[in-house]
Amino acid sequence: MAEIIPLPHRSTGPDRTGPEPLWRDALGDRLRRLRHERGERLADTAERAGVSPQYLSEVERGRKEPSSEMIAAIAGALETTLIDLTLGVADDLRAAVRSRSTATRGAFALAA
Amino acid sequence: MAEIIPLPHRSTGPDRTGPEPLWRDALGDRLRRLRHERGERLADTAERAGVSPQYLSEVERGRKEPSSEMIAAIAGALETTLIDLTLGVADDLRAAVRSRSTATRGAFALAA
Repeated sequence: MAEIIPLPHRSTGPDRTGPEPLWRDALGDRLRRLRHERGERLADTAERAGVSPQYLSEVERGRKEPSSEMIAAIAGALETTLIDLTLGVADDLRAAVRSRSTATRGAFALAA
Repeated sequence: MAEIIPLPHRSTGPDRTGPEPLWRDALGDRLRRLRHERGERLADTAERAGVSPQYLSEVERGRKEPSSEMIAAIAGALETTLIDLTLGVADDLRAAVRSRSTATRGAFALAA
């Protein structure tokens, strides 16, 4: 199991101070992990999904908001389903929130 | 463990015949259900989310692809988290795939 690294705070858009990452961040992380588990390069997965490696890279880094059709195409290229992808993202979000609240408690303890 | 059903090939645009709905369809259904469970009108939820009732209606019907920021705002307005929303969508997708594959099997049985 890969280590969960909390996503950084983001400055634009609504409430970036909350404990939850955005959907596209969590989705991108999960897609990258699935690709790495298959030992594939961006170009391998992207070709099967019918997207450019640059686009896939941006999706994986949460820089692009993929359409639902794109999510389906990338999931298909990774031989997963939207169900499993969604469950995986939920697991990752849970782990990220847990690690963030631990970090917050640590910061409060230091400040007290 | 859920049965894995491979995603169909998709041409362009949403494929309504495949066994898996798209992310935005499942998300929209879940958002509408959450709103109904709260006994709210589109205008109530939309106002708290900072979006128009028309926009929220389109998201609920899978007609608009909401950005991650919008998803977060609507989830917040419904007092849910992205984690719970994502888990709920995964549950709905599972139920939808199950009922669709039952229907498909029925159709094949009739055709045979």
